[in-house]
Amino acid sequence: MTSQNQPNLRLPGPVPLPDDILKLAGSQMINHRGPEYADMLEKMSANLKTVFMTNNDVYFITSSGTGAMEAAIVNTISPGDKILSIIIGVFGERFAEIAEAYGGDVTTLNFDLGQAADLDQIRETLREISNVKAVIFTHNESSTGVSNPLEEICNVVHEESEALILVDAVSSAGGVPIAVDAWGIDVVATASQKSWISPPGIAMITFSKKAWEAHQKSTSPKYYLDVQQYEDYLQIGQPPFTPCLSVMFTLEIALKSMVDEGIENVFARHHQIAQHTRDGAKALGLELLPDPRFASNTVTAIKLPEEVDGKEFLSRVIKNHNVILGGGQKSLTGKIFRIGHMGWVEKSHIDEALAAAEDTLKTMTS
Amino acid sequence: MTSQNQPNLRLPGPVPLPDDILKLAGSQMINHRGPEYADMLEKMSANLKTVFMTNNDVYFITSSGTGAMEAAIVNTISPGDKILSIIIGVFGERFAEIAEAYGGDVTTLNFDLGQAADLDQIRETLREISNVKAVIFTHNESSTGVSNPLEEICNVVHEESEALILVDAVSSAGGVPIAVDAWGIDVVATASQKSWISPPGIAMITFSKKAWEAHQKSTSPKYYLDVQQYEDYLQIGQPPFTPCLSVMFTLEIALKSMVDEGIENVFARHHQIAQHTRDGAKALGLELLPDPRFASNTVTAIKLPEEVDGKEFLSRVIKNHNVILGGGQKSLTGKIFRIGHMGWVEKSHIDEALAAAEDTLKTMTS
Repeated sequence: MTSQNQPNLRLPGPVPLPDDILKLAGSQMINHRGPEYADMLEKMSANLKTVFMTNNDVYFITSSGTGAMEAAIVNTISPGDKILSIIIGVFGERFAEIAEAYGGDVTTLNFDLGQAADLDQIRETLREISNVKAVIFTHNESSTGVSNPLEEICNVVHEESEALILVDAVSSAGGVPIAVDAWGIDVVATASQKSWISPPGIAMITFSKKAWEAHQKSTSPKYYLDVQQYEDYLQIGQPPFTPCLSVMFTLEIALKSMVDEGIENVFARHHQIAQHTRDGAKALGLELLPDPRFASNTVTAIKLPEEVDGKEFLSRVIKNHNVILGGGQKSLTGKIFRIGHMGWVEKSHIDEALAAAEDTLKTMTS
Repeated sequence: MTSQNQPNLRLPGPVPLPDDILKLAGSQMINHRGPEYADMLEKMSANLKTVFMTNNDVYFITSSGTGAMEAAIVNTISPGDKILSIIIGVFGERFAEIAEAYGGDVTTLNFDLGQAADLDQIRETLREISNVKAVIFTHNESSTGVSNPLEEICNVVHEESEALILVDAVSSAGGVPIAVDAWGIDVVATASQKSWISPPGIAMITFSKKAWEAHQKSTSPKYYLDVQQYEDYLQIGQPPFTPCLSVMFTLEIALKSMVDEGIENVFARHHQIAQHTRDGAKALGLELLPDPRFASNTVTAIKLPEEVDGKEFLSRVIKNHNVILGGGQKSLTGKIFRIGHMGWVEKSHIDEALAAAEDTLKTMTS
């Protein structure tokens, strides 16, 4: 659907990119310490703030989304700090691992795969543990297709504690609303290859005043991911380290197009295509993994019939239909498949993916 | 020279890229956990090992060169480890800063700007300090256009100590010979936008058996830059974190082209264009900053006549000639200009840059 012979890549990122964006990724290099870059950085920052509904500063880091999650940790916590880690899948586990790697005193609160975090349990846990420095969690768990109720979780954390709220929004931001200032989120981490209509390579974070206060006290060692470096250079319109220009070029235009479209429209579009995907899967008689109240608007996780070999299913879908679906991870391996629908997605992309799944399942269940 | 209206970007990286490489940067996304990526990673690793003359494993990290320098530190040292940091310019200072950020007990050995490190002083210092865990230094100091005598430094370190040798070769590797195994270098860090004919976004490191032994003992906190993650995933032909695909695509072909050309020929080509640049600058009556014995083959630093305002010079060169030269950094600001000649460079690029400098200097010194 993207170009002739190109597979319909329906992973939860990277997703296919339209030709005009790919052309930008192929632009000639520029001086990353010159006025052209400064102008680009200024525009990108303004547009990213609009999408995040924040007045906080935002930073562009050349790394994957995991680098941005690590930036959230190393810039705010110190070894021994109490951290509450809310886990609904593998990316929540990763966030806890990063906090533990940096010496955080991590309490984990785990929920069943397919479920969102339960607000009452978060409240109870915060009442049990005093002086929690930070609450960390994944907004959209792409491994299970579940979106946590972000605003409600923030409300509970604010009601029960003074904790920082650090959110892995890698696979949600840009596709679903995140009102950083209104909801009082201290750090949001995301990455270019998700809803941002760009290749992977650039991670983005927002950093609140409260997060800056924590930064001053944080003793975690850091250099490449130290937001102070990004902030200092932002003042002169430069990056601290040579950035991935090819992705900055696409992200500049993608951010502009999102703001021009209107972020409410962008979010509505993501909701519509997600609903279309969920309806289509159900019409095939398939069951969704997520609790329907918390089904993600950027990726849909669909249960495979028990008798179907998940690995064989994915490989037949590629071989016979040129469609690349996401599989299950860890304990969900072979049990689900996932369809990414973030950034640039057309209904035809989804219909083709569902048709490929339907046809393949027919050959494997008859 | 690159395309109509495109400036002749003569920074010491990023450098302009040829059209066929830019086209690759604009390629459609692929599944980074699929067979196509595994095949690409295998070929890239093999070719990178050839350029580095090593049997050590090599890793591709989505970051700038600074990320790779940090990877060299966090994967081998622990807080309190004694580190000898040899400094001949700002990038040497940065390497020391990273080691200090991670709690290294850093002794610095500083040399005058324009000079390479002195072997006798390194030898003496290693005799004075016992149990140095690592010697760290920049191979090619792009801020001064000086290349340290890498093989000779390695020999001294091996003769006088058991220290690890961690080399920032960000702006030299790929353009000048680095015989990793023969010279006994434990970690080499470099980045795609230098001699590797690619945009910025991917850093590369080699990691020796001795470095792996140090990794097992290292208590530095790490996650995104932990080589263990890259090694574990390499075994299944995958990246641990979503990589910057656009730059991996260019780097795959650039590495292949370097090996196809023959690395001795690549190094000879860099030497020739550097000599052409140095000869050209001297023919204009200008003095080079570096000690001629150690002048870099990837970037040339040229002194400005004392009466010339360096900032004004750079801006006139851009405005009147569409050529972007590098300036001086820190204490060299306004005193030198630099011409990058790494990766894809043609004589005409250099001649145009020198002509622009000559013409501009005429207007500023008459």
